[in-house]
Amino acid sequence: MALHTVKNGMGSGTWHEIQGEIPAPKGFRASGVSSGFKKHGEDLALIVSEREAHCAALFTTNQVKAAPILVSQASLKKSQNNIRAILVNAGCANACTGKKGLEVALASAKLAAKELRVGASQVLPASTGVIGKLLDLEKMKRAIPFAVQSLSPWGLANAARAIMTTDIIPKIYSVKSLVAGREVTIAGIAKGSGMINPSLATMLSFIVTDAAINQKMLEMAFNRCVEKTFNSITVDGDTSTNDMAAIIANGGSGHRMISSESAEYDHFSSGLMKVCDRLARSIVHDGEGATRFVEVTIKQARSYLEAKQIAKAIANSPLVKTAVYGSDVNWGRIICAAGHSGVAFDPDLVDLYINKQCVMKRGAAHNFNLQKVREEFKQPHIQVSLFLHQGKQGASVWTCDLSHEYITINSTYTT
Amino acid sequence: MALHTVKNGMGSGTWHEIQGEIPAPKGFRASGVSSGFKKHGEDLALIVSEREAHCAALFTTNQVKAAPILVSQASLKKSQNNIRAILVNAGCANACTGKKGLEVALASAKLAAKELRVGASQVLPASTGVIGKLLDLEKMKRAIPFAVQSLSPWGLANAARAIMTTDIIPKIYSVKSLVAGREVTIAGIAKGSGMINPSLATMLSFIVTDAAINQKMLEMAFNRCVEKTFNSITVDGDTSTNDMAAIIANGGSGHRMISSESAEYDHFSSGLMKVCDRLARSIVHDGEGATRFVEVTIKQARSYLEAKQIAKAIANSPLVKTAVYGSDVNWGRIICAAGHSGVAFDPDLVDLYINKQCVMKRGAAHNFNLQKVREEFKQPHIQVSLFLHQGKQGASVWTCDLSHEYITINSTYTT
Repeated sequence: MALHTVKNGMGSGTWHEIQGEIPAPKGFRASGVSSGFKKHGEDLALIVSEREAHCAALFTTNQVKAAPILVSQASLKKSQNNIRAILVNAGCANACTGKKGLEVALASAKLAAKELRVGASQVLPASTGVIGKLLDLEKMKRAIPFAVQSLSPWGLANAARAIMTTDIIPKIYSVKSLVAGREVTIAGIAKGSGMINPSLATMLSFIVTDAAINQKMLEMAFNRCVEKTFNSITVDGDTSTNDMAAIIANGGSGHRMISSESAEYDHFSSGLMKVCDRLARSIVHDGEGATRFVEVTIKQARSYLEAKQIAKAIANSPLVKTAVYGSDVNWGRIICAAGHSGVAFDPDLVDLYINKQCVMKRGAAHNFNLQKVREEFKQPHIQVSLFLHQGKQGASVWTCDLSHEYITINSTYTT
Repeated sequence: MALHTVKNGMGSGTWHEIQGEIPAPKGFRASGVSSGFKKHGEDLALIVSEREAHCAALFTTNQVKAAPILVSQASLKKSQNNIRAILVNAGCANACTGKKGLEVALASAKLAAKELRVGASQVLPASTGVIGKLLDLEKMKRAIPFAVQSLSPWGLANAARAIMTTDIIPKIYSVKSLVAGREVTIAGIAKGSGMINPSLATMLSFIVTDAAINQKMLEMAFNRCVEKTFNSITVDGDTSTNDMAAIIANGGSGHRMISSESAEYDHFSSGLMKVCDRLARSIVHDGEGATRFVEVTIKQARSYLEAKQIAKAIANSPLVKTAVYGSDVNWGRIICAAGHSGVAFDPDLVDLYINKQCVMKRGAAHNFNLQKVREEFKQPHIQVSLFLHQGKQGASVWTCDLSHEYITINSTYTT
């Protein structure tokens, strides 16, 4: 891979996607093994940093938090964000499992910590799967040593497969660039694909990097990236009990520590944004039953938050999503959803576009070519743009359509 | 029909449902005719009071309001709630139609007013159907005289059919009782069945009564009833641009005017509640693609509004609705939806019941009989009860499941 020349030895080159097999960043190893939580295949992922690492994490804002979420939050505090490993199982959410659920989540993390010879609070547990099912500690006891033994610099792909539930495609993405003269890698994995409407947190995503960056700047970069990516997607408007996104930076690349809003910080952030962006998009592409990718963009709003609130209302409307599924040019549902978003705007100023086709101008139906717009509705990627003409801010939300397949998947999930 | 004895000549008897053909209350006539807005069948309803009548009405809170909504709001003001008729068409929402839409809505009302020899602002227009389509005034011109000519005391059933869109069953309900010694009738019609998530207003519902009640008390009774009925249902979480609920009381029964919170007021309110309740439930039963009726009840909340917010989050969750559709005992989705409702509560205190079966006790999965709970999930009426243990207030919301049929209906609505 050709890396761009970096001026003055400082980080400002381009971030390149790593093609083919993805190696973990320096000082990281990962594995994905089968432990019996799912009926078939890998269902236990382990990601480990050889050295102590900074960790920034965001958790679900759902009032009902799964046991692993509560344990991870406590462990981050206890270890002062000094994390060595993440242990994730799919097939059992360990949510609504009371005191026992907490005990089992903590015991699993301790088991892994013991095998890895790190502190108990340096291992973050995470879970995804059916709510109300207690995590089986016996399965964990059998599988954890095997997961530790399987750790490899090439193991991220296995980990990505192990955290899948209704996902069809594993989600993994990695970029490389020079930062402060050293090669830095940012690699991430994620899972969807239902109960997706992250709110200040997200579904499951774990990102590792060998960049050297202090806790404060890591958190700042991660929060910004998550807001524009994982927090800007929705599959079905349901925020999970188990959402978690974390990044671990272990400084393995050996460059000078990023500790302020420097050029290196900006460069690192742009790489991180690329990874988060790609993973978030892939969650939507692989949304339950999805046949289309829809980008809803609100422009000329008074604020980013108002723009996002409108975009979410449109992206979560079952009527908009079914119209997209059927390529039915029922654009009125889009403006209707905007209207009940809770944000005040003047309907008589609003323009609405489907891709490049204007369907509504200043609040009234535009004289458009129905056949042309129907063709746009049949594209795999549909851009919905709403111009409010009341300010200068904007926001985008990514979603998918609502299909028969979504109903089939979700009407028989536990049976 | 046997009417109960009324004590002291005051209203406190039981309200009896009128079976079979439903006559309009004294002094009302109605019709439903075909004007070509829908491909087949009646699509223009007219309801007329022979005498001046008080009218209380609630309109959609969607920022984007259809032309007939804006015209009706203005007419109510202009006529000081002194209304003589309601003119409703189905098949064209006349929303997002700009200035022209307003002109056509107003012209239609004027045409009807002229035929009926009443003031132009005494006719409220309402529309339902596809957004973005301008109401065809020519069709109105041809149909209105025919609608006026067809007016009959037996015409409410025709009106109920004429306002249907994707509804399968016409919604009409009527009750009778003595009020202050005179026989009073309250009769209502309504339509669903998609874009149903009324918010301080409702889908279309029109209620007529020959009760004598002043404007202030009529509004008070109507607001209370609508909040607990039409405003407590949801089919798909989408609040329409055209929602409207109105009641017209013309005093035709000749009893002493209700002008305070008297026993007669309470009695009238209970009859009105019965009509609203039945119509709202029938909208849910006939929700697009619905196969189940789900009553979500939140108990022991801090306030009615918080209870309702949680109930709505559960009732609008596509994951809850698909689980009900598939009789899949995935109760975790219910507590998950409660958790992201935006209302704070302590998950460790919560109990959850499906009909009489407890599935979660104090925040943790209860040891329930899976087969028994699965049987409950197969019932046509499912009662979901969540006990928060944090207060004394409660609220119920009624919804239906989310089926393949909903997707089929809504992916091909305009094509």
